[in-house]
Amino acid sequence: MRMYDIILKKRQGQALTTEEINYFVDGFTKGEIPDYQTSALLMTIFFSKMNHRETVDLTKAMINSGDVMNLSGIKGVVVDKHSTGGVGDTTTLILGPMVAACGIPMAKMSGRGLGHTGGTIDKLESINGFNTQMTKEEFIYKVNKIGIAIAGQTSNLAPADKQLYALRDVTATVDNLSLIASSVMSKKLASGAQGILLDVKTGHGAFMKTQEDSFELAQMMIDIGNAMGRNVSAIITDMNQPLGRAVGNSLEVKEAIDTLRGNGPEDLYKLCLALGTELLILAGYTNSPDKALQILQKKVEGGEAFEKFRDLVKSQGGSIEQVDNTELLPQGKYKVNLLSDKNQYIKSIKAEEVGLAALTLGAGRQTKESKIDLGVGIYLHKKVGDFTNKGELIATIYANDEEKSKLALNQLSSCYEYSLKPVEEKKLIYGIINKDGTQLIK
Amino acid sequence: MRMYDIILKKRQGQALTTEEINYFVDGFTKGEIPDYQTSALLMTIFFSKMNHRETVDLTKAMINSGDVMNLSGIKGVVVDKHSTGGVGDTTTLILGPMVAACGIPMAKMSGRGLGHTGGTIDKLESINGFNTQMTKEEFIYKVNKIGIAIAGQTSNLAPADKQLYALRDVTATVDNLSLIASSVMSKKLASGAQGILLDVKTGHGAFMKTQEDSFELAQMMIDIGNAMGRNVSAIITDMNQPLGRAVGNSLEVKEAIDTLRGNGPEDLYKLCLALGTELLILAGYTNSPDKALQILQKKVEGGEAFEKFRDLVKSQGGSIEQVDNTELLPQGKYKVNLLSDKNQYIKSIKAEEVGLAALTLGAGRQTKESKIDLGVGIYLHKKVGDFTNKGELIATIYANDEEKSKLALNQLSSCYEYSLKPVEEKKLIYGIINKDGTQLIK
Repeated sequence: MRMYDIILKKRQGQALTTEEINYFVDGFTKGEIPDYQTSALLMTIFFSKMNHRETVDLTKAMINSGDVMNLSGIKGVVVDKHSTGGVGDTTTLILGPMVAACGIPMAKMSGRGLGHTGGTIDKLESINGFNTQMTKEEFIYKVNKIGIAIAGQTSNLAPADKQLYALRDVTATVDNLSLIASSVMSKKLASGAQGILLDVKTGHGAFMKTQEDSFELAQMMIDIGNAMGRNVSAIITDMNQPLGRAVGNSLEVKEAIDTLRGNGPEDLYKLCLALGTELLILAGYTNSPDKALQILQKKVEGGEAFEKFRDLVKSQGGSIEQVDNTELLPQGKYKVNLLSDKNQYIKSIKAEEVGLAALTLGAGRQTKESKIDLGVGIYLHKKVGDFTNKGELIATIYANDEEKSKLALNQLSSCYEYSLKPVEEKKLIYGIINKDGTQLIK
Repeated sequence: MRMYDIILKKRQGQALTTEEINYFVDGFTKGEIPDYQTSALLMTIFFSKMNHRETVDLTKAMINSGDVMNLSGIKGVVVDKHSTGGVGDTTTLILGPMVAACGIPMAKMSGRGLGHTGGTIDKLESINGFNTQMTKEEFIYKVNKIGIAIAGQTSNLAPADKQLYALRDVTATVDNLSLIASSVMSKKLASGAQGILLDVKTGHGAFMKTQEDSFELAQMMIDIGNAMGRNVSAIITDMNQPLGRAVGNSLEVKEAIDTLRGNGPEDLYKLCLALGTELLILAGYTNSPDKALQILQKKVEGGEAFEKFRDLVKSQGGSIEQVDNTELLPQGKYKVNLLSDKNQYIKSIKAEEVGLAALTLGAGRQTKESKIDLGVGIYLHKKVGDFTNKGELIATIYANDEEKSKLALNQLSSCYEYSLKPVEEKKLIYGIINKDGTQLIK
């Protein structure tokens, strides 16, 4: 078998065999197939596409390139949630404790942020002492003990995906549905959960800009999971404006805590309830969405979800003082306000650009090697549809560097579009795909 | 400017600017742009195509990556001929002396063979002592003195093309019209001739398998040449079966000498006359194809063309004894015959496969580093349309390794298709494109 022939075959629009896909993934991972042949194949895949069977084979090959977590030591049906990446997406920190409070084990492997999207592990490290590095045995022990643990991904889960992604990132071959789906699913399936819920972001600030692509990606990932014997559902949700009000690590932790205490932004709480409902169904806890919703609300209102978050922080060595008094979390020393210059409605807030402004402040990584500043970020006092009077506060920037704060203010101010007329409220959830089929939310 | 953005722009189907093309060619040649980004761009170009202006810009950028020959020291209008590569294509060795005998200076830069197609420089080295390495001054001196010189390409003519071709060769991105046209034309234009005749091969054994593609490639190369102020014509000729009867270096030299003496295969001689006619017109020698043809025939029949070949060999240090007695040229020590197993007509001889059988014998290079065996090859006693009686000789293999001769015989025997009914003769020339427009040959 020769890589040249594999590239040519795909270029001619033919489907690759399982053996050819295994040969390529194995050879690339071992460094036997050079990057320049792999990038040529990736670009060919972009243009010629992969069919369902090829996409499943690619996912399997990437899973087999590394370790597969065995979570059978955990009592109950282990569920996991994955977001395709957004701005201000703090759901994991809220959803995990909510679902764990219902007795569903949450064994969550999370990643760090790259580019304009944040990562759960970075956010948690805003809490002094919070440790996400642990052995597999510790991880399983913690889940069994308190019902939840959040760990950083081990480097040997789907290493082929890691290497491929790094190459896709510099060769303009990220945005192909089969490549995205196999990348996400190889990591998730290797992480070992029985039930997987996918939060597929759609819109301006997401990888998938159109609803059509987002539903197609969701269905493809579900098909891959089903082909591997797992239960997978998906929710297609809005990323035209940032989720919630906070963008930046400690700001988002504070917002997550506020939400668990019943004082969070409405959109963020609503999304967590919807995701939780699907997770409870996936775990076999109930078949009734209404019942699941009620239970989850009760767990928040009764304080059990917040209590579970406190357990999580304690279990992983984090500072309870900071959880109980979020003013103690790191916070940028400079505050810069964005004010409204006339009486107007906010028509749109470009999510990706808000993420990039936060990146300027140091909230995310420009490259894999960048060190991030946990205390900086952006707080959105107004969201799409809100009216602002002249001089009223639209957003606040938290910075540790005056120069960067000015740059970010400039970037942030260009994220907004205004209207003199009232603006229709944005939809938060576009649809749900689960074992009952596809349900479009009107 | 970033290579990533250039890849993405082309991937989205947009035309690259002159500056972007220069940036890419320059960065790649200097090693500043990594191969994996370049191969991604090449594959993008394969799918998204380049327009006329981009193709001219790419050619210019590749010319500018190295030296440009200044042939103004040569008296008269310098012409050059280029074949897109075929099997048994010995025309340069015949055509050069024919045209030079008419007083048209032939300053020919040639290449070595790669894969199943042969190279003029390798063929000439079958003659003991023949030297194709010379300084630019020696080259011009020889052309002025005897009217012809054939030199190996200097390594610094269009080095960007050399590097790009090496990458295209291993990433399945060779067969794109813009990439082929710019590759051929960058070398030819940098070689400095005023008039360029392109022999665009079409059919099974050529890069271009269809006549449509071949005419399009020819027109594209003519347009590039015209955009750079040169006179360019093209002849589209058949490569469904090997040209002439000899495939392999010394065998082809012998065949060229036979043809110059008036005893060559009909198709090879006919093609050389057609090419010569166009070269005489390109050089401004005459405007009448009929007159050009008559003159060329007279140069062969009168022995002046052969005499010019002898001058060429003498001028470049080769053995005149071998020219005058071609039995002294190297010849494989094993002869293996392919015989007809019944009474039948030859319907087709797959040119590419014949070239690959010769490659097995060692007549060509599997990789750039391969050493070739000048004495081995294949002689075709029968060509398409010929009748063979049972037991009659179809082809002879000349080998220096018994094992290889068996492998090659096996390969060669599968190159033939037979018919019990008479077979229509193949067309040799499909069309001519010159300053008078496109003329299809019926």
